[in-house]
Amino acid sequence: MMNKIQLMNLAFDLAKQGGIKTFPNPNVGAVIYKNGEIIGKGYHKFFGDFHAEIHALNEAGENAKDAIMFVTLEPCSHFGKTPPCVDAIIRAGIKKIFIAMKDPNPLVSGEGIKKLKSKNIEVEVGILDSRAKKFYEEYSKRFSKKNSYVVLKYAMTLDGKIATPTGDAKWISSEKSREWVHKFRTKFDGILVGVNTIIRDNPELSSHSKGKNPIRIILDPELIIPINSKVIKDELPTVIIYSNKKDTQKIQQIMKQNKFLLYIKSKDGLIDFKKIIEELRRISIFSVLIEGGGLTSWTALKSGVVDEIVSFVSPKIIGGQNAITPVEGEGVKDISKAIKTKITHFEKIGEDILIVNKVIRNK
Amino acid sequence: MMNKIQLMNLAFDLAKQGGIKTFPNPNVGAVIYKNGEIIGKGYHKFFGDFHAEIHALNEAGENAKDAIMFVTLEPCSHFGKTPPCVDAIIRAGIKKIFIAMKDPNPLVSGEGIKKLKSKNIEVEVGILDSRAKKFYEEYSKRFSKKNSYVVLKYAMTLDGKIATPTGDAKWISSEKSREWVHKFRTKFDGILVGVNTIIRDNPELSSHSKGKNPIRIILDPELIIPINSKVIKDELPTVIIYSNKKDTQKIQQIMKQNKFLLYIKSKDGLIDFKKIIEELRRISIFSVLIEGGGLTSWTALKSGVVDEIVSFVSPKIIGGQNAITPVEGEGVKDISKAIKTKITHFEKIGEDILIVNKVIRNK
Repeated sequence: MMNKIQLMNLAFDLAKQGGIKTFPNPNVGAVIYKNGEIIGKGYHKFFGDFHAEIHALNEAGENAKDAIMFVTLEPCSHFGKTPPCVDAIIRAGIKKIFIAMKDPNPLVSGEGIKKLKSKNIEVEVGILDSRAKKFYEEYSKRFSKKNSYVVLKYAMTLDGKIATPTGDAKWISSEKSREWVHKFRTKFDGILVGVNTIIRDNPELSSHSKGKNPIRIILDPELIIPINSKVIKDELPTVIIYSNKKDTQKIQQIMKQNKFLLYIKSKDGLIDFKKIIEELRRISIFSVLIEGGGLTSWTALKSGVVDEIVSFVSPKIIGGQNAITPVEGEGVKDISKAIKTKITHFEKIGEDILIVNKVIRNK
Repeated sequence: MMNKIQLMNLAFDLAKQGGIKTFPNPNVGAVIYKNGEIIGKGYHKFFGDFHAEIHALNEAGENAKDAIMFVTLEPCSHFGKTPPCVDAIIRAGIKKIFIAMKDPNPLVSGEGIKKLKSKNIEVEVGILDSRAKKFYEEYSKRFSKKNSYVVLKYAMTLDGKIATPTGDAKWISSEKSREWVHKFRTKFDGILVGVNTIIRDNPELSSHSKGKNPIRIILDPELIIPINSKVIKDELPTVIIYSNKKDTQKIQQIMKQNKFLLYIKSKDGLIDFKKIIEELRRISIFSVLIEGGGLTSWTALKSGVVDEIVSFVSPKIIGGQNAITPVEGEGVKDISKAIKTKITHFEKIGEDILIVNKVIRNK
């Protein structure tokens, strides 16, 4: 026989095995116990993987009925890549659940517990409270800020272009600048681009071994992403934000590649960026690096979610009335209506000039 | 009775009165002497004014026939704003001419003397040689360089625009940057813009009392410049480069405003920039600041005449797929074909970043 402290400690030991790979999700472990025996164990292995509770329930199978579950963090009640864990727990017939800590994410905190209780499942929160607080210290910190941290980044030529009229963008900036960007990416939970950038450049959008990879987030309202894109084919996690549920075949194809589909309603073909940033917080993405293209950057800037702009100016001229510029979309008619920034830092990196700006928000 | 040294000294004293106002033309003075009397005096008063010889000939009138002329610099034989001086001298019936110095401009040097001699006018060169050498020291220096000095300057937003789609460009850069530009202009003999910039912005293109004003040069192949533009209406000198001789009424209107019309043949509606820079050297314009717009800048860059690019980046975003960028025209299809520059200097000026580049010429 094991006591609840031992069982919850085991759940934490399991959780730890996820390590950095679950980023930006927290590490979570789960144990299912019945009649003095452990009948299910699980942990969240990597971002995009099933949650810990699901692994444990799968191991327990039908035996989970009337069993007790130990889980290091409140089970989710929202629909992410996988259906909500609470639904699976309810369906499996778990009779009592010990939770080490409520989810610190204010957008979901308490919702899972409420739903479990509403189905008459006994819930006890706070087992191994001190270990939990320490274990989730970094994760909790991320909610201390009210707003997400959103940065827009691009590299343009000396004449303000990010690509030629035919879409050639390799490479605008120097190797040193690109290395700087790869390193810079490791500071973010997510890196977001419009689907046109994927179609045009088929980028890897990784830190190129400079550190942890941010989650790739592709803004693709109509779900037109080519299924053989690097961000779909490779093994790193990708979130695809879409608004068109009709192409079920495409949805199936993407899900088969273990990629995360996030549905957000669009209006006139555009998705509100405030909504995007909010939804990304729900799945633990609090800092986002937007890397274009022109329409995505404009939509993000206009919505007011962008905190900083990181711009590289490269000593090249490509000209062209139809060349592509860093921010396009509708734009403003009068200079007085421009979105204003304040340059907070600038330096030479390789052959290029790096200009860092704070976006000045209108009160 | 005065001797030739006294008379040439008088011509120099007259020349000096032109002062800075003849810039970029040299100061020139002329004296006409007949039967022991000075019957004509003249000096070049300001850029765009008649040459010294013409003023002196006008004063002498019909009396100039068989007189002697003293002139501080070789009379011109090329058609500038006014017809060649040598033609007027020949027509007036001058019988002998003393010239202090040959024109150091290799494009015209000796041509005037040759033509005068061909009409059997006696020519003596080198009177007051040492005063002449000193007097024209600065002017002569300008020919020591084989190439003119050409700089392209623009101010763009952080997203690479020089104007909104509706053409609003006031102001992209901060007041301090604009003051810097006004001062920078004083370093140039000429400041060149395309006629579209005149139509769109109706700029003054002056140093705004920060120093001497460069000659405004308007590239206007089809002669579509509005006759009420500031650069036509005001009293500062303007050179209009055109290729269409058909609109004689417009030509008359412009000449009435004392502006300088410079005819250069075009090809497919575009004037070769190498030819422009060469023709400007003929009229003593050796350094040119090009201030856009996009097509003019592209044409200049592509022709290989641009030595440096001075670019301001201003902390504003205006977006817009149809906004105007600093360099447009045809552009290049592949990044590898880009015109490359090397950043030689950068600093913050006011709210903006100034980036100075040397254009890397392909060997």
